[in-house]
Amino acid sequence: MTPATVLLPRPLAEGSIQSPVPSDIDIAQSVAPVHIRSVCESLGLDDEDYDCYGKYAAKINLSVRERLANKPNGKYVVVAGVTPTPLGEGKSTCTVGISQSLGAHLGKKVFTCIRQPSMGPTFGIKGGAAGGGYSQVIPMDDFNLHLTGDIHAISIANNLLVAQLDTRIFHENTQSDKALFDRICPIMKGGTRKVSASILRRLERLGLPTDVDQLDEEGVGRLVRLDIDPDTIMVNRVVDVNDRMLRKITIGQGPNEKGYTRETQVDIAVSSECMAILALATSLEDMRDRLRRMVVAYSKAGNPVTADDLGVAGAMTVLLKDTINPTLMQTLEGTPVFVHAGPFANIAHGNSSIVADQVALKLVGQDGYVLTEAGFGSDIGMEKFMDIKCRYSGLRPDAIVLVTTARALKSHGGGPAVVAGKKMDDAYTTERLDLVQKGLGNLQAHIDIGNQFGVPVVVCVNKVNTDSDAELKLIVDDALKSGAAAAVVSDHWARGGEGAVDIARKLTEVCENVRSDFKFAYPLDISIKGKISAICMKIYGAVAVEYEEAADLAIERFEKAGLGKLPICMAKTQYSLSADATLRGRPTGFTIKVKSCRAAAGAGFIYPLLGPIMTMPGLPTRPCFYDVYECSFSFG
Amino acid sequence: MTPATVLLPRPLAEGSIQSPVPSDIDIAQSVAPVHIRSVCESLGLDDEDYDCYGKYAAKINLSVRERLANKPNGKYVVVAGVTPTPLGEGKSTCTVGISQSLGAHLGKKVFTCIRQPSMGPTFGIKGGAAGGGYSQVIPMDDFNLHLTGDIHAISIANNLLVAQLDTRIFHENTQSDKALFDRICPIMKGGTRKVSASILRRLERLGLPTDVDQLDEEGVGRLVRLDIDPDTIMVNRVVDVNDRMLRKITIGQGPNEKGYTRETQVDIAVSSECMAILALATSLEDMRDRLRRMVVAYSKAGNPVTADDLGVAGAMTVLLKDTINPTLMQTLEGTPVFVHAGPFANIAHGNSSIVADQVALKLVGQDGYVLTEAGFGSDIGMEKFMDIKCRYSGLRPDAIVLVTTARALKSHGGGPAVVAGKKMDDAYTTERLDLVQKGLGNLQAHIDIGNQFGVPVVVCVNKVNTDSDAELKLIVDDALKSGAAAAVVSDHWARGGEGAVDIARKLTEVCENVRSDFKFAYPLDISIKGKISAICMKIYGAVAVEYEEAADLAIERFEKAGLGKLPICMAKTQYSLSADATLRGRPTGFTIKVKSCRAAAGAGFIYPLLGPIMTMPGLPTRPCFYDVYECSFSFG
Repeated sequence: MTPATVLLPRPLAEGSIQSPVPSDIDIAQSVAPVHIRSVCESLGLDDEDYDCYGKYAAKINLSVRERLANKPNGKYVVVAGVTPTPLGEGKSTCTVGISQSLGAHLGKKVFTCIRQPSMGPTFGIKGGAAGGGYSQVIPMDDFNLHLTGDIHAISIANNLLVAQLDTRIFHENTQSDKALFDRICPIMKGGTRKVSASILRRLERLGLPTDVDQLDEEGVGRLVRLDIDPDTIMVNRVVDVNDRMLRKITIGQGPNEKGYTRETQVDIAVSSECMAILALATSLEDMRDRLRRMVVAYSKAGNPVTADDLGVAGAMTVLLKDTINPTLMQTLEGTPVFVHAGPFANIAHGNSSIVADQVALKLVGQDGYVLTEAGFGSDIGMEKFMDIKCRYSGLRPDAIVLVTTARALKSHGGGPAVVAGKKMDDAYTTERLDLVQKGLGNLQAHIDIGNQFGVPVVVCVNKVNTDSDAELKLIVDDALKSGAAAAVVSDHWARGGEGAVDIARKLTEVCENVRSDFKFAYPLDISIKGKISAICMKIYGAVAVEYEEAADLAIERFEKAGLGKLPICMAKTQYSLSADATLRGRPTGFTIKVKSCRAAAGAGFIYPLLGPIMTMPGLPTRPCFYDVYECSFSFG
Repeated sequence: MTPATVLLPRPLAEGSIQSPVPSDIDIAQSVAPVHIRSVCESLGLDDEDYDCYGKYAAKINLSVRERLANKPNGKYVVVAGVTPTPLGEGKSTCTVGISQSLGAHLGKKVFTCIRQPSMGPTFGIKGGAAGGGYSQVIPMDDFNLHLTGDIHAISIANNLLVAQLDTRIFHENTQSDKALFDRICPIMKGGTRKVSASILRRLERLGLPTDVDQLDEEGVGRLVRLDIDPDTIMVNRVVDVNDRMLRKITIGQGPNEKGYTRETQVDIAVSSECMAILALATSLEDMRDRLRRMVVAYSKAGNPVTADDLGVAGAMTVLLKDTINPTLMQTLEGTPVFVHAGPFANIAHGNSSIVADQVALKLVGQDGYVLTEAGFGSDIGMEKFMDIKCRYSGLRPDAIVLVTTARALKSHGGGPAVVAGKKMDDAYTTERLDLVQKGLGNLQAHIDIGNQFGVPVVVCVNKVNTDSDAELKLIVDDALKSGAAAAVVSDHWARGGEGAVDIARKLTEVCENVRSDFKFAYPLDISIKGKISAICMKIYGAVAVEYEEAADLAIERFEKAGLGKLPICMAKTQYSLSADATLRGRPTGFTIKVKSCRAAAGAGFIYPLLGPIMTMPGLPTRPCFYDVYECSFSFG
């Protein structure tokens, strides 16, 4: 290997930080990223430990985790937020900025773990998601586009599954048991039947003899006829594009499909259960097992049909085999970043991968820090981090960084609606202590949530240049009074790691001195409804939970199918602690209504739906790609 | 860099070649591929010339071509075939095997250029496409799966285009001219309107003032209203999965889409015009221009609507920017391979990329050889290689390798139908000189086609172990009598490069001693129908061409729209020299009927359709992925 010519991390060059802060793309392009090999070398990785994907991204082999198994983990910090406005409150930017500070200014070993964004929103309204200002992951275009192809692999694995599901129904509709048997277990030269490993597993699940020649007519029928009820299909095709026309479609209208039509929908790629599986799998074998267990539909008799029953889980695993290795990138100040997995934060758990955190904790070692981000407010992404991700990973956080902005609190305190793409109301750009004061309840609720999990809370007040000192002080003082272990204003957006030195230092003090006494919000071995109640009442602050009939039926079915011991992944609005997006601040006295309930048996959670969840965004009249090539992405 | 520890190329280890020939996967796994860095070093490439994608694939920067611009090209050999059976006649295997022979046995510099396969058929019926026996590209799983993500990038660029097309129609349906104008050219701070580069180009195309504030009401309407006629839409969504249920679908049935529904179809990814563009582009700028020019539909007034009119060509270029660099892999004997682009051979031109051939010709230099494969029989892939690919690349071939098998000729001579997945009839596994003799007309026709292009033809008789010596001699003798410059039996499948030494040597003799006197089948500046006639009569041997009304209308429209000077890309069956798949051998006296005619204005060809072309394969009842993971792909 070329010797590393760069010492990493390295603070932004003196005098390079400009005011007013330039655009994200201008900042991103003002810093030349180092070859990812140099980042790998700065981490002590050998040639065999990683594979490059272009110059600025590498996949790190999980064998690194095994090799370092006896080394102690670093400190584990989850970055969560208050209930956000539609603009977001800068959690990714905080996660990156504090990491830059720890690594390039305080001399700590540090790793940032964040989610890979979907390309749909990148080209729709949202734009990039690599942080912002002087706290960014670079290069921006690699980050926002294909990266190492994980989302593409997930899309195709998901779509192969659904294609096989529909095609199997079609073939069963048009073939006798015997014809199906002769095709699925074909007779080879020599007269014996070819029996794939997935067929053997199915025979065992059905309690049938594994020597298929011993099957009687009924046994053959049970083996080859999945008898799927099309009305119960739970997997949809996906695409990583905002394509609103696919929200409801009818398929199978070609003459060769002989009338087997079906109404369905296409979702955005990252909503696939395969993405949640990638994020929660602890190894390639674990991923394979979870893929096999995916329940894709029910038979007409009500039995679950899995990906393994369709014979497709092996192909899905092969398609996904490289995705399990986390993707390494770098920040503006040369600290390492894992960008790995990006499940939805409502119908899924909204956290980056378990394996990225595990590898990172080993790589930073005892005195190092891993900052991992959880999606949306702490009631959503962080609750799921604790109760789902930590449950499957076995890891326990040492501290919570709870990100808030004056803007978010003003909005909770009764400020005018904040709408993406519209001009910000003056209330948000001038001093309005009254609005901040009235909105503090939301911050208090999120501090309480953190404390309920027994993990010390460090409030990060993410500064914007129009915030007044009095506003910022009001937030810090109240946070400390409300049970935060620390509360600090941070200016990493405008100043990079240097602007986050105060909070980074405070975070290290808390991690070293304040004991985390972690507890889950609920045990696994109570009923599904018991677990839902615990989340709604302890975390959200609801007074009661009600269930619509569809939810009742589904819950009953899941418990009967042996899925009752799974953790819960609530699908609710991110704009309120309640399930009603209009209830801002810290709502009280509300009842949660569970409308329906679904299971992701492969990923390993039950997800109750509290309202409609959009799984396919649309493009606006002028999508942000109008500016792409001309300015938004670096491109020769 | 690690110094290359392997001298490349290197013949298969002595004694490692087994008989009977093991399965493709067993052979592929018996040879450890070298790190792709070593292949790059064996080519004299510097660190800056390439980017690794994992251990066994790298993308080569086009700057290499520029750097070596003054170096003479190597010999340029196109590998074509006779009219195949549904099993294929081993063209890829020949291309790889002769390359292995030239490189590892005759000491020549050599490069193999082949297409990247679609994953749809890989998981459907066909299985892998990396060659076979002892003539393969390795590693097999990288080759057959995501590789460097080019097909994924094409899928998403294509799908973003179509999503934007449909969404634009929807937005135009529901908004006034003024509302559209205010969104597409929004008023920025300071009061001026934001006008993207694509809008400026559209203003110029429309002859409108580029200062949008000067537009009158009519001008605004012309600018912002594309007024697309949904019945003329020519681009479809794509997916790289065999999903027959998507052959005909209805989209837009969600309540928020307000009744804008449309019947459409989803095609396999490699059928996208974006794939043809990648294969024909000569640089990133050329690709960008071709993407902009893609005609996606017509307005209600009959004017073409392009990707650039939709403002999406910049985003598509950014999505595709890495695809333009060819992907390097290696053969079993360590010779270099470019696997780059994989357009259909019927609705597109069925050849790997221009840039891969150009870079390879520079890398091998004056005394070296580049073997590039053309899809299907020489009437299809090779005709398009000559008249489309060579026209756009400026390159001229020095020789044709024409691949035939005894099996194909027996089938042309009246042998029973060869059906994929069914047992081969005895006629194909025992000596049947009568059938071979009767089928020789097909080989003669293909030799004639090569000679018409003025390029010497080297017939490669691809040997199978059941072929008799008399059968093989009959073919060789007849080929020589029929105008081939050489004809040689090759045994590369069973013996690797060593088995192809005779033909490789003969090929070098022909390239050195027989002058190629290249001529196109038609000039560009005659009418579309004149060009179609030239192909049908000179290449296929038809006596006449007829046009259905739809074809007549389309041709008239294309000539009016200024597309009349494009080359022609015939979409016809690969199973006959005629357009009737049942006419085997060398049919005579037939008439070609052009049913309809389409244009790929971005890729740069007109494609007349002679019959129905399937653009979405299906999965069989037992897809070959039943054996994946268990045996077909290497996987830890």
